[in-house]
Amino acid sequence: MNFSSKIVEQAVDEFAKLPGVGRKTAFRFVVHLLKKDRSELSAFAHSLLKLKEETRECKLCHNITETDICSICASPRRDRKTLMVVEDIRDMLAIESTEQFTGLYHLLGGVISPIDGIGPSDITAQHLMQRVQEEGFSELIMALRTTIEGDTTNFYLYKKLRRPGLKITTIARGVAIGGELEYADEITLGRSILHRLEYENTLTK
Amino acid sequence: MNFSSKIVEQAVDEFAKLPGVGRKTAFRFVVHLLKKDRSELSAFAHSLLKLKEETRECKLCHNITETDICSICASPRRDRKTLMVVEDIRDMLAIESTEQFTGLYHLLGGVISPIDGIGPSDITAQHLMQRVQEEGFSELIMALRTTIEGDTTNFYLYKKLRRPGLKITTIARGVAIGGELEYADEITLGRSILHRLEYENTLTK
Repeated sequence: MNFSSKIVEQAVDEFAKLPGVGRKTAFRFVVHLLKKDRSELSAFAHSLLKLKEETRECKLCHNITETDICSICASPRRDRKTLMVVEDIRDMLAIESTEQFTGLYHLLGGVISPIDGIGPSDITAQHLMQRVQEEGFSELIMALRTTIEGDTTNFYLYKKLRRPGLKITTIARGVAIGGELEYADEITLGRSILHRLEYENTLTK
Repeated sequence: MNFSSKIVEQAVDEFAKLPGVGRKTAFRFVVHLLKKDRSELSAFAHSLLKLKEETRECKLCHNITETDICSICASPRRDRKTLMVVEDIRDMLAIESTEQFTGLYHLLGGVISPIDGIGPSDITAQHLMQRVQEEGFSELIMALRTTIEGDTTNFYLYKKLRRPGLKITTIARGVAIGGELEYADEITLGRSILHRLEYENTLTK
C-alpha cells in the first residue's frame, strides 16, 4: 500500500511489528485511531511509554510489577512451599486463571534452545537454583512447553535441582476435557494412556 | 485475566479497543512489547502521538495528509476531470492499489445512515457539492458500499449532483474474478446478469 502520509505509514509499520498483525490489519488499526480524539491517542501512547518506564521484573519471580516484589510473591495467602516454573507471564496468567494453584511462581523468561543460541545463562535458571537453595520449597512443578526445547530445559533443571526432600513434578498432558479422541494427536493420546489415572482419583470429592 | 500490574492492564485495555482485538490478543501484544527496548516502545508511542498532532485532512479530498493538500490532489499527473467518491481512506487506498484510476478522490467520511443519526451534514456531502460546482468534473464515480446506507447515500448525492454535462457512474459489482458462480450470493450474481457486458468490450486490448 502506498500511503500518502509518512506519519500514517510509520504508525502502520509499528503496528505491523506486533505478532500476527499484517499491514492490512495494522492499517485498519490506524484508521480506527485516526477517528479518535487527541486525548485518547495520548492515553494510548502514554500507556506504551509507561510499560517500560514504570514496570520492572519482580526480584523474586521475574513477573512484571510496579514494585520490587510482585503482588503474588508478596501475598501472605500463597503457599510458599510449592513453586511453579513457567516460561513467561502469559503462562503464569493462564495458570492463575484456573484458580487451582496457590503456590509461588518462577518465570524463566524462555527455554534453553541451543539452535537459537539460548543457553541456561540467558534465562533465569541460575536464580531459580538460588531460590531452591534459599527458600526451602517442598515441590517444584515444571510447566514448560512440550517441545524439544521445553523438554531439554526440564531435563537440565531436573539434573541441577534434584535433591532429597524436593519433589519435582510436571503438569499432566493429555486429551483436553471435552476433546474428542479421534481428533487428538497421537503423541498426546499416547501420553494420556501412558499416564492413565486411577478412576477413583479423578472423582470430584 | 487478573494482571499483577496496573500498567500492563492499562496497555491491554488500550490494545483491546482496537477493532477485532480481544483481551488475549491485546495481552499477547503487550508481552511482545515488554521484551522490546525502551527506544522501540518510545518510537511506537511517538508514532501514535504524531498521528493526531501532525496530520490533518486534505482541504480538497479529506484524505489524511501532513500538508494542506494531499499528494494525490497536488499531483500534476492526475486526471482532474474525474472524481471518485469513496467512504474513507481505506477504500481510497484499495482503489489506488489497482492502478486503474488516475483521477481525483473525495472522501465522504461515512455514509448517510438515519438509524445511526448520520445525515448529509455529518459527512462531507456539502463540500462535495461545492467541489462539483467549482472544479468542473466531467465524471463522478460512486464507489460506496452496497448496503442500504451506501445506496441511500448514492441516491441522495445523485439527486443533488446531477446536471447536464456531468456523467455519474458507479463501480461495477459482480462475481469476483476467479470466483465460482455456485458460491456467489444471488444478489451479486443477479447484478452480474443484469449488467452483463458486450464480450468484445471485455477483451484486453
